[in-house]
Amino acid sequence: MADNKKNVEAITSRDEDFAKWYTDIVKNADLIDYSGVKGCMIIRPYGYALWENIQSGLDGMFKETGHCNVYMPMFIPESLLNKEKEHVEGFAPEVAWVTHGGSEELTERLCVRPTSETLFCDHYKNIIKSYRDLPKLYNQWCSVVRWEKTTRPFLRSREFLWQEGHTMHATAEEAHEETIKMLGVYADFCKNYLAMPVIKGRKTDKEKFAGATATYSIEALMHDGKSLQAGTSHDFGDGFAKAFEIQYLDKENKLQFCHQTSWGVSTRIIGAIIMVHGDDNGLVMPPRIAPTQLVIVPIAQHKEGVLEKAAALKESLKSKFRVEFDDSDNSAGWKFAQHEMRGIPLRLEIGPKDIEKNQCVLVRRDNGEKLFVSLDNLENEIAALLDKMHDEMYTRASERMESMTYDATTLDELCEKGEASNGFFRAMWCGSRECEDMIKEKADMTSRNMPFDATPNGDKCVCCGKPADKLVYWGKAY
Amino acid sequence: MADNKKNVEAITSRDEDFAKWYTDIVKNADLIDYSGVKGCMIIRPYGYALWENIQSGLDGMFKETGHCNVYMPMFIPESLLNKEKEHVEGFAPEVAWVTHGGSEELTERLCVRPTSETLFCDHYKNIIKSYRDLPKLYNQWCSVVRWEKTTRPFLRSREFLWQEGHTMHATAEEAHEETIKMLGVYADFCKNYLAMPVIKGRKTDKEKFAGATATYSIEALMHDGKSLQAGTSHDFGDGFAKAFEIQYLDKENKLQFCHQTSWGVSTRIIGAIIMVHGDDNGLVMPPRIAPTQLVIVPIAQHKEGVLEKAAALKESLKSKFRVEFDDSDNSAGWKFAQHEMRGIPLRLEIGPKDIEKNQCVLVRRDNGEKLFVSLDNLENEIAALLDKMHDEMYTRASERMESMTYDATTLDELCEKGEASNGFFRAMWCGSRECEDMIKEKADMTSRNMPFDATPNGDKCVCCGKPADKLVYWGKAY
Repeated sequence: MADNKKNVEAITSRDEDFAKWYTDIVKNADLIDYSGVKGCMIIRPYGYALWENIQSGLDGMFKETGHCNVYMPMFIPESLLNKEKEHVEGFAPEVAWVTHGGSEELTERLCVRPTSETLFCDHYKNIIKSYRDLPKLYNQWCSVVRWEKTTRPFLRSREFLWQEGHTMHATAEEAHEETIKMLGVYADFCKNYLAMPVIKGRKTDKEKFAGATATYSIEALMHDGKSLQAGTSHDFGDGFAKAFEIQYLDKENKLQFCHQTSWGVSTRIIGAIIMVHGDDNGLVMPPRIAPTQLVIVPIAQHKEGVLEKAAALKESLKSKFRVEFDDSDNSAGWKFAQHEMRGIPLRLEIGPKDIEKNQCVLVRRDNGEKLFVSLDNLENEIAALLDKMHDEMYTRASERMESMTYDATTLDELCEKGEASNGFFRAMWCGSRECEDMIKEKADMTSRNMPFDATPNGDKCVCCGKPADKLVYWGKAY
Repeated sequence: MADNKKNVEAITSRDEDFAKWYTDIVKNADLIDYSGVKGCMIIRPYGYALWENIQSGLDGMFKETGHCNVYMPMFIPESLLNKEKEHVEGFAPEVAWVTHGGSEELTERLCVRPTSETLFCDHYKNIIKSYRDLPKLYNQWCSVVRWEKTTRPFLRSREFLWQEGHTMHATAEEAHEETIKMLGVYADFCKNYLAMPVIKGRKTDKEKFAGATATYSIEALMHDGKSLQAGTSHDFGDGFAKAFEIQYLDKENKLQFCHQTSWGVSTRIIGAIIMVHGDDNGLVMPPRIAPTQLVIVPIAQHKEGVLEKAAALKESLKSKFRVEFDDSDNSAGWKFAQHEMRGIPLRLEIGPKDIEKNQCVLVRRDNGEKLFVSLDNLENEIAALLDKMHDEMYTRASERMESMTYDATTLDELCEKGEASNGFFRAMWCGSRECEDMIKEKADMTSRNMPFDATPNGDKCVCCGKPADKLVYWGKAY
């Protein structure tokens, strides 16, 4: 197993240097390569297949809830970006500007979309005339650009892939309902596809999206106790509609402003998958979105009949699972380490002795458990095992999140607990920006969100001691 | 049927003004909307659903032939674009340049990718070391930008969606095989999904891609007799590999240059679908990629039981076909015209009398044929009808293409026939650039391609009369 060791040593230990462990996995699990443009990554076949599975799961949920896909231009004229004041202030400092087409200078600069609210508004203004045209439930899959100073693969890159939903509604209530519904879709997706528990809640005004009346987020806890905002859903009220004059005739033939939402999930969520489930042997892929769910490794493959039997297994399983068959001439140990690095949920080993016994060995990536399984019932066993792994991965992540969630009722306690450990810190807040800023300064934490249906752990602000009815999850964030 | 008329009048007749007919359909069939950025279009839900079906068909064929998807950055540093001389000369005049990130000027300009050969080369250089790493069969779905002066929706836009395959091979033979194979995939896709006949052949050197050693194309004939290049496949030989120093160690441990291909199909092909199949009532969608294959229109829907029966039909059909149910309060005539405009292959009408007789009416979009079909065998009838429509649409388009393909053996004949009609013009060519330029000047035609296995119609160049062994399809192109 010397080869095995060599491979595993290639990544830093998770407890030793979490940041380096992360970037080691990103590279060694063949997810990305760096490109010649700082902050722009190349998503390699294995990483892109993961994104395709995430897309397919989310897109199915969007379509089931009545949304359809469109495609907007990637360029936004400067004057269009400027139409909503808060929005342009939030984004202008970090956009890439196109100034020339061929050898000619453009008469107006175009920014490469950092997000597409303004484009959708411009289009909706054209196509919405009457209450019959509402709601409009559009989404687009595309890449966006934000000129970040510090970049890390998936977590913060200058270009990233995402989906952005943009919807228009007749009333404020409907827009609010949509905002909450899509946050729920994200949370369900994280639970059912990524085995990832998240906290659903509302952002404070300080942390909300530029131009929104309210922003909601799902927050996940990484293995190092830092939190990661894994998706957001924004209620815009009629702010953009007023700036862009998007009006409809209601049933009484009166002009009304539309109410709007937007919501997005990006390739950032791949960073969350790595940091929630990964271990010292590499990535651990949640079974339902794993590009390869099962890898078949023949044992003593030079022996008669082994490769043939392994190939036959692949043929019989490939219509039900995403299967790889590794008949390369690398050693079995090397293969084990390599497929563990890439996080393939199940390894199927089959050698001469197994064939004699009409069985094979299944090895779980998440906990290393080895199972001997009869070939007669293989398909059902694999299906059940993948489901079981999903459930147990979710449970482990939930228990870890719970064990790293702390309560604090005074600023001193918050600072002490935050000093001792990372995690989510539950503390009451009066709602003032001053206290939020003070907590950031003293405890080095930002508000993550105000969870729905959270049980208060007091009635006084953790910072100023004044009456407070908002329970906030605080934490250190990616 | 007054409503019906109103709707149909909204588009220009195809024979009267083909260009205006085309843009009328693009808008009235809800495929696109214009955006605030010249030459950049908004692809609306119906247009995007069409693109999704095209993607899904092609992507399946790519994966079956061993290709996988990746994602490259959208920006190319100027120095990287400059690495291959012919390539940069071909593209630099029409790229969009990013010069600023936020408020800071970039130290090096970045162009928004017009195509990604240079990015793929830069990546392949990093990951290809040995013959074991070959072939690399990558593809990406993305948007690209070319700063065109004159733009038309789908046919020529500043931003468009496409796929670009980029592959690397050990030998020139393998690269050539791949080039031809993927051209075949495109031609099969056009035939089997789009009901569109195409001519497969090699481009002349004048018309080949900037940096390629050979370019192959599929050429389709539009209803007005102009031709449209619907897909291209390029053999790069080792030209880029030498410019980018992409080498591998062969089995004898000797360094060799890789051989490369690229191939692409874009949203342009939607323009071809419109112009091959459309008529004076609007779009005619090929059944296999139609976003909606069947629309159910209840007749006398206020009568008891009609809406219920129509809704029940939708429920029973929706797992097998892409079905729409139009229970809006528009008149039946308005609905007919609207769904014809959008090109939905089959309309299912059901009213009180039909229900009594346990039947419904199916109306074909392509030829207006009306069929009375028993509800007991509906699913099979629809499936058979969609296949039949596909086949007949393909046959009609093929016959039309054949009837508009002309032979010429002298330049005068070529000019006369080209004056009299549009179409494909088959004529022998000696291979000289002078003759190609002369034909363009005199006959106002460009070489489309040199079809595979074409039967020569002479042995002398149509222009100079010298010996010639190349049969060229000439034509007027989009």
